[in-house]
Amino acid sequence: MPAYATNMRLKFPIVALVLEIITIILFAMFVIYDDGKSHGHDSHSNKTHEKQPMDLYPMFQDVHVMIFIGFGFLMTFLKRYGFSSVGINLLLAAFGLQWGLLMQGIWHLEDGKIKISIFKIINADFSTATVLISFGAVLGKTSPVQLLIMTILEITIFSINEHLVANVLEASDVGASMIIHAYGAYFGLAVARVLYRPGLRNGHDNDGSVYHSDLFAMIGTVFLWMFWPSFNSAIADTGLPQLTAVINTYLSLAACVLSAYAISSLVEHKGKLDMVHIQNATLAGGVAVGTCADMNIGPFGAMLIGFVAGIISTTGFKFLTPILASKLGIQDTCGVHNLHGMPGILGGLASIVAVAFGKKENGNAAMQAAALASSLGFALVGGAVTGLIMKLPFWGQPPDQNCFDDSIYWEVPEEEDENEESLAHADHSKNKAEA
Amino acid sequence: MPAYATNMRLKFPIVALVLEIITIILFAMFVIYDDGKSHGHDSHSNKTHEKQPMDLYPMFQDVHVMIFIGFGFLMTFLKRYGFSSVGINLLLAAFGLQWGLLMQGIWHLEDGKIKISIFKIINADFSTATVLISFGAVLGKTSPVQLLIMTILEITIFSINEHLVANVLEASDVGASMIIHAYGAYFGLAVARVLYRPGLRNGHDNDGSVYHSDLFAMIGTVFLWMFWPSFNSAIADTGLPQLTAVINTYLSLAACVLSAYAISSLVEHKGKLDMVHIQNATLAGGVAVGTCADMNIGPFGAMLIGFVAGIISTTGFKFLTPILASKLGIQDTCGVHNLHGMPGILGGLASIVAVAFGKKENGNAAMQAAALASSLGFALVGGAVTGLIMKLPFWGQPPDQNCFDDSIYWEVPEEEDENEESLAHADHSKNKAEA
Amino acid sequence: MPAYATNMRLKFPIVALVLEIITIILFAMFVIYDDGKSHGHDSHSNKTHEKQPMDLYPMFQDVHVMIFIGFGFLMTFLKRYGFSSVGINLLLAAFGLQWGLLMQGIWHLEDGKIKISIFKIINADFSTATVLISFGAVLGKTSPVQLLIMTILEITIFSINEHLVANVLEASDVGASMIIHAYGAYFGLAVARVLYRPGLRNGHDNDGSVYHSDLFAMIGTVFLWMFWPSFNSAIADTGLPQLTAVINTYLSLAACVLSAYAISSLVEHKGKLDMVHIQNATLAGGVAVGTCADMNIGPFGAMLIGFVAGIISTTGFKFLTPILASKLGIQDTCGVHNLHGMPGILGGLASIVAVAFGKKENGNAAMQAAALASSLGFALVGGAVTGLIMKLPFWGQPPDQNCFDDSIYWEVPEEEDENEESLAHADHSKNKAEA
Repeated sequence: MPAYATNMRLKFPIVALVLEIITIILFAMFVIYDDGKSHGHDSHSNKTHEKQPMDLYPMFQDVHVMIFIGFGFLMTFLKRYGFSSVGINLLLAAFGLQWGLLMQGIWHLEDGKIKISIFKIINADFSTATVLISFGAVLGKTSPVQLLIMTILEITIFSINEHLVANVLEASDVGASMIIHAYGAYFGLAVARVLYRPGLRNGHDNDGSVYHSDLFAMIGTVFLWMFWPSFNSAIADTGLPQLTAVINTYLSLAACVLSAYAISSLVEHKGKLDMVHIQNATLAGGVAVGTCADMNIGPFGAMLIGFVAGIISTTGFKFLTPILASKLGIQDTCGVHNLHGMPGILGGLASIVAVAFGKKENGNAAMQAAALASSLGFALVGGAVTGLIMKLPFWGQPPDQNCFDDSIYWEVPEEEDENEESLAHADHSKNKAEA
Repeated sequence: MPAYATNMRLKFPIVALVLEIITIILFAMFVIYDDGKSHGHDSHSNKTHEKQPMDLYPMFQDVHVMIFIGFGFLMTFLKRYGFSSVGINLLLAAFGLQWGLLMQGIWHLEDGKIKISIFKIINADFSTATVLISFGAVLGKTSPVQLLIMTILEITIFSINEHLVANVLEASDVGASMIIHAYGAYFGLAVARVLYRPGLRNGHDNDGSVYHSDLFAMIGTVFLWMFWPSFNSAIADTGLPQLTAVINTYLSLAACVLSAYAISSLVEHKGKLDMVHIQNATLAGGVAVGTCADMNIGPFGAMLIGFVAGIISTTGFKFLTPILASKLGIQDTCGVHNLHGMPGILGGLASIVAVAFGKKENGNAAMQAAALASSLGFALVGGAVTGLIMKLPFWGQPPDQNCFDDSIYWEVPEEEDENEESLAHADHSKNKAEA
Repeated sequence: MPAYATNMRLKFPIVALVLEIITIILFAMFVIYDDGKSHGHDSHSNKTHEKQPMDLYPMFQDVHVMIFIGFGFLMTFLKRYGFSSVGINLLLAAFGLQWGLLMQGIWHLEDGKIKISIFKIINADFSTATVLISFGAVLGKTSPVQLLIMTILEITIFSINEHLVANVLEASDVGASMIIHAYGAYFGLAVARVLYRPGLRNGHDNDGSVYHSDLFAMIGTVFLWMFWPSFNSAIADTGLPQLTAVINTYLSLAACVLSAYAISSLVEHKGKLDMVHIQNATLAGGVAVGTCADMNIGPFGAMLIGFVAGIISTTGFKFLTPILASKLGIQDTCGVHNLHGMPGILGGLASIVAVAFGKKENGNAAMQAAALASSLGFALVGGAVTGLIMKLPFWGQPPDQNCFDDSIYWEVPEEEDENEESLAHADHSKNKAEA
């Protein structure tokens, strides 16, 4: 395979070590603990969010579980790509949170320093979510080095858009339907478009699940589902807005489960449920209610958003994903368009309506629309450019036949059964030969 | 199979969508956020429980994990029923929590409205636990439509009994040994009795575990075990009672592990441990100490309850479950009688003794006894009626031979190994034919 | 096998029941709830740590998850030893936490009583961590009875060393790099040395993973990784020291991931990643930053410690573990020397430097050194003596050929596939016989 250099012996270790050393140097220069003695200039500082330094810590841990267990295991549904799913997820998130602290921090310097608080590490975890969503779009088709490059670029661009949306436009996006979910999804789809593989047009043997890989994926699904109220409320204003964000998310997700199950059964052969829908579309309610989570949309309003999100997401998996792949050349491994893309846009649109109806104090519907447009624009342009850089031929991208296969980047244990199988067959052959 | 209509194509989607739409309409009419401006008429309002709206949120998340990961994965022990265990668990709990909010809420209206707080969503999660316990009794033998019907009826009846026990009898059941565990178990056993299947008298090939399905089940077991102190203390009075509930549950469960392991080894072939016992009986201490959890029974008292519960539960699995199946026609798939039934009764009895000895302020032993009787009565009658409704022949109940098999309601991935196996055999045949 | 009596029918149940009964009696004599009315004599009482009785509860639950899910599933990587890994982990931790409450409590009696608070149960959970680390060193080669004996002795000795370090030397070890990690590792290695098995010099068929067992192990890894900030900060002083401990651990672990991945790829065949390294060495940053976690070492200082720990740990797995086994007769199943031993020492050494540079108020570098020496001394001597007691021939130790195999102590389900396989082969034979 002359066109592919997937041997990571030197390339990957050097990239990883150099990145970490640079990061440590930047932390030495710019990052200190938040001792709580803030100047109070910054209206978005953690002072409005925390009374005690550890108040948000339980929320942080819930978000942390979503990032590392939730996203990591959700992607283990592939039969031979579980090591990469949970392992590369850990790698990208561990690097991404450091990079996110720097990139988000430079917009909020105090005396030239970034002061780390629980609020800041929640946001750092959030920034990695964009990368993990995009990772889902290109899962199985990219090398660790490519993905580290994507992490740097995606989080850098995310931080610019986030600053624009929150501080310039002053739009509201407490659960980040627009700036994380829609952004991460369309960024990843743009990358996937640039990295289009005609050789995978007719599918790939390993691009599917086995029974137990689907159960591992459900660990990710359920942890994401349970802790999504924390994701959408972690940085809400304390008091009633935070409670509202929890309740709206809790109810939106519950309603979404019913519609996702119903539509999955409706569109599948003999009315059976499809694990792909259950693993993903049940979460669309959490995405879609994100922007409106802290708004006074009423419990039934949240349920309506979740109900619609479950329908859109499931039908997207069934009908839209095949078309994107065949007509537009967008091979979206995990279907992030259905889980994060369309529900993210739905969340943005819902917020325009909600704000227009006065459901958010000091809200501005035009700014909500601008925030959605900005998030999509940065995603598509940023993703396309990032995809072109990732396409350079020396980052160790796997050849088509080795896609969706851990063994190209991991030492994979030989399966006992397969060995026994082979031995058994060898025995048969031997017997036959003797006979 | 003319007698069975398991094709869910229209039946299930319609039921799920109609239920959800009705629920959203009821929420639009009756449910609002709790803004904290309570009238204070209701001594059971959340004001006595929370000082800040989010105080109970970490407790809520622990309970949430028990409901969705704990119950869901505990039931994945069956070799070919993991999708249903964790997936239908999610479906029932997601619908059940919405229904529970309504059914529990109508007893505590304020100005004709149900005000949702963290306290209320904890109780909504609790209400679903009754259904998930009953689900364990009929696991593998019922359709999703049947189970949605059970969810509606069981939670409705639960809410009546809960109101009777807490507000009329004014009995104490902080950890819900009686109103959730005993109720859920005997309700499920009554349903199982009505749905008795003579065809499964001699067992079923799929009614058992494989190695990795037992490990998936241990995820459920351990999360239930760890967070049970939150289950038993979440709605306790703040301060010492809540601390007492945590410590009693922590110690009861620890003691229960030792007795469950000891008895499992004692009763099994060659002293080996049995995974069924370890997955279930180690949790009996959490069930049994529930009613007494916030009482001043002393740490050793809690341990004694847990120790006895572990013995009762393990011996129940070994000796009683087979008898229930063969003599009484109660086929209890998960053995909920041993994990929730008998330990729940033990919890109620222990509370009668504890209250009689003055371990609970303002306690009344007779009311504790009445609460136990009421919970069992509602469970048995309610379960029997519910079972009769579920037995109607148009809910898609699976035929005997398709019990304990996901593939009747789910798209199940073909196993790679089996395919290779088949191909290998085909090759052999071909070789032989040629020879 | 006359030399081995692995049948547990009576031995194990009697040991377990008697231990639990004795423990309950000791609790009845000495243990009460902490009602908060402390005399305030003890500077280490929970009063300095908690304002409300439940303040530390979310921290406790995170630690609890690390002990039961984290350690339990981390060890499920072995292909046929998952039941024991997660099951015996539960048994030892459940007994250990009771024993730890007693052994730690006798140094802090109030009016002759041990008063249990959340602070105390966090410390009880901590005490079990030492045993679970040592369990990793002897995993697959010891019986449940041997391990219960180890639990009693190791926690007893731990509590002496902990008292010496914290109250006599007044050394600082907030995240317990020395008193838990280094102690637990070298204790376990000393036991493993005494229990050396020449018969396993050339490995064992079952001493390895299969694909899905490696994924189960990642559940343990990721939960340990996520909640380690809680482990290192749970008993820190509230306010800035606790926040510092969280941030230092968060960053140390993130940096450690990058160096562990880089070195794993660098030292492996064709630059592939090795699951053993990823499962373990990514956690070394949490161990190594433990002692310094609440010190003012700066975010970059924490990252530097994590970065070095990842390198040391990964190279230890690759180069040192084989030498320990072949030259020193120390067969360390899980490589605890690399995850807990060397990083624990690194943590102690880092604290000596940090304290010498004034990064901890009232710190004393000589006392830090003495604490490290004390922890290692108690570990090696205590472990050797414990190993000798465990070596007595009547505790049911498994023979070499049954090592790393659940089926010696557990009822293990027959594998469906293997059965079909056998039948298939039988068929072939039959065909051939007929031919």
